[in-house]
Amino acid sequence: MNERYERGLAKLIEIDGEKGRQVVDSLRDIAPDFGRMIVEFPFGDIYSRPGLDLRTRELATVAALTALGNAAPQLKVHIYAAQNVGCTREEIVETIMQMAVYAGFPAALNGLFAAREVLGPTADSPA
Amino acid sequence: MNERYERGLAKLIEIDGEKGRQVVDSLRDIAPDFGRMIVEFPFGDIYSRPGLDLRTRELATVAALTALGNAAPQLKVHIYAAQNVGCTREEIVETIMQMAVYAGFPAALNGLFAAREVLGPTADSPA
Amino acid sequence: MNERYERGLAKLIEIDGEKGRQVVDSLRDIAPDFGRMIVEFPFGDIYSRPGLDLRTRELATVAALTALGNAAPQLKVHIYAAQNVGCTREEIVETIMQMAVYAGFPAALNGLFAAREVLGPTADSPA
Amino acid sequence: MNERYERGLAKLIEIDGEKGRQVVDSLRDIAPDFGRMIVEFPFGDIYSRPGLDLRTRELATVAALTALGNAAPQLKVHIYAAQNVGCTREEIVETIMQMAVYAGFPAALNGLFAAREVLGPTADSPA
Amino acid sequence: MNERYERGLAKLIEIDGEKGRQVVDSLRDIAPDFGRMIVEFPFGDIYSRPGLDLRTRELATVAALTALGNAAPQLKVHIYAAQNVGCTREEIVETIMQMAVYAGFPAALNGLFAAREVLGPTADSPA
Amino acid sequence: MNERYERGLAKLIEIDGEKGRQVVDSLRDIAPDFGRMIVEFPFGDIYSRPGLDLRTRELATVAALTALGNAAPQLKVHIYAAQNVGCTREEIVETIMQMAVYAGFPAALNGLFAAREVLGPTADSPA
Repeated sequence: MNERYERGLAKLIEIDGEKGRQVVDSLRDIAPDFGRMIVEFPFGDIYSRPGLDLRTRELATVAALTALGNAAPQLKVHIYAAQNVGCTREEIVETIMQMAVYAGFPAALNGLFAAREVLGPTADSPA
Repeated sequence: MNERYERGLAKLIEIDGEKGRQVVDSLRDIAPDFGRMIVEFPFGDIYSRPGLDLRTRELATVAALTALGNAAPQLKVHIYAAQNVGCTREEIVETIMQMAVYAGFPAALNGLFAAREVLGPTADSPA
Repeated sequence: MNERYERGLAKLIEIDGEKGRQVVDSLRDIAPDFGRMIVEFPFGDIYSRPGLDLRTRELATVAALTALGNAAPQLKVHIYAAQNVGCTREEIVETIMQMAVYAGFPAALNGLFAAREVLGPTADSPA
Repeated sequence: MNERYERGLAKLIEIDGEKGRQVVDSLRDIAPDFGRMIVEFPFGDIYSRPGLDLRTRELATVAALTALGNAAPQLKVHIYAAQNVGCTREEIVETIMQMAVYAGFPAALNGLFAAREVLGPTADSPA
Repeated sequence: MNERYERGLAKLIEIDGEKGRQVVDSLRDIAPDFGRMIVEFPFGDIYSRPGLDLRTRELATVAALTALGNAAPQLKVHIYAAQNVGCTREEIVETIMQMAVYAGFPAALNGLFAAREVLGPTADSPA
Repeated sequence: MNERYERGLAKLIEIDGEKGRQVVDSLRDIAPDFGRMIVEFPFGDIYSRPGLDLRTRELATVAALTALGNAAPQLKVHIYAAQNVGCTREEIVETIMQMAVYAGFPAALNGLFAAREVLGPTADSPA
């Protein structure tokens, strides 16, 4: 336990709640040090920095993971996190749609399907 | 409804039949505007252009999605579409195999497994 | 000229100023229709939508292009655009740094070098 | 020298002319065996197969390399090759434009700039 | 049957045991020639070369497939193969963890989950 | 200055010599904290770990950067580093060639050209 870890763990829980801790725990029987590093570097070093608010940080991550298109589980965690730190459903969906311009329609489509899985269908969608 | 949408929808149905409409419908409860955009831009603006026949357009798309390797559902839709607009099984398989040269053997392998799922095994394959 | 084009051109100029028009013009002697499409779809259809402010849209694009790492000229245009619509230098740099987590340190490094080219070195950097 | 090499070299020269041989020669002082393998596998094994004509093979490659976006020198060689085996300028440009749908506008833009470098500007472009 | 095929098949079985043969067989009813090519080029031409031992070859492949992040089935085959040619569990896990630096944390995470699936959880992991 | 930084800086200099310090310095006027993070995480946390020797670590990185194909400057730094920690020219070239199997021939070709730039042409290459 060190300062970076403590700061990172607090940030991870602020952002992801229990889901974040689950990712770390899931590494315990294959690469426990890597679980510690995820707390320390992304959350203790990067997400804890001033200069960019958490809502924008999460939308930037949703944008990047949608565009890369090869990390579906992590994209879902960050769609959840974006909502958790206060992004609206609309902001998340708009960010993903915009990726059609930069990474193509299939990447955006798969991002939108991930969003529906996490956020649920819209209340006013037709039966 | 506008001219681009109508032209796009006709082209989408010509290429993909009911499968195309399903993709559009599948967006209704998460991002309905994006469903409209898929009809308008890819199908109304791009696939409707002269200068390249539909068979070659579909093989180019099969090539690109095999090479990118991160959009399996869309690759399957376009393998189906390629056959639907008149590409032979052999042309589709050759296009995918060729991607081993440009994107590596795993990308080509995963493309071939997608093709078997869509096109079925060859009639004369050993039991 | 149509409504989407006019809306898109106004948005493109709002975001990119003269640099945006230059990208469109640069296509005139190879694919002029594509220059029109860039105005219509990304700017007329996507960036004109409500639901996400322009500052966040530009940071999402900077994030995605840094992560993809294969479109340096477009990344530079959007770093410029981000600043132009009101993002601070710090917000842009933080967004790019964060990509080390999602796309690796080389992608972030190359994004930071692009940022220095567009934004210039910091005033207080050592000689 | 073996049958695959001879078949591959003939095919390479049919497709790329002197440019193909230059690629092979360029490997002589770093990895000469790899120069031989390029002749044997892509050209001796893949491009020599029946079942897909050379024009479609080259457009599929132009599509894939535009979409991947990280192999500009090879994209240029294949834009040249596509024209050399009989593809029209329009077919090449349409194939590259279509990649905006599958890999995003920056990938297509960079592909079009490569095409202008290889094919030259259109005769009727404005001064 | 030719010399390259025989050399490749022996190498494939040395590296992958029965799993390698299964990959080749799995292509029989969609692209049997591609099954032959996998034996000939990767195994007959590349893995059979002197100058790099099989253990390092397999770790290089595990590194690349983890970083690319779009070929999960093949990554698992090569994690198995790495262990089969004598790499320790620790070497495999370290190689995958290192990819966080070059391709981001999600790519490394997904690689580690693949490793647990192939290698099993550590013996001393907490219940 | 902290323990991770000091351990990382010593490792960075062991691996890359002056070139490593130059990368860190090059960030001073755009994102100095990121220069510190490069020392701390990749070198202080990852490359300093036991369980995988430096030679294999560098070849794994050369493999990954060749396969990703979008970070040419960093690939060159690591080809230099690989040689610096004791990899032979042959091992480096074999690792890059092998990437043709996993990421395609263009990625391997561009990796080999980077290798020639860093390692120089072979002594016995024809004039």
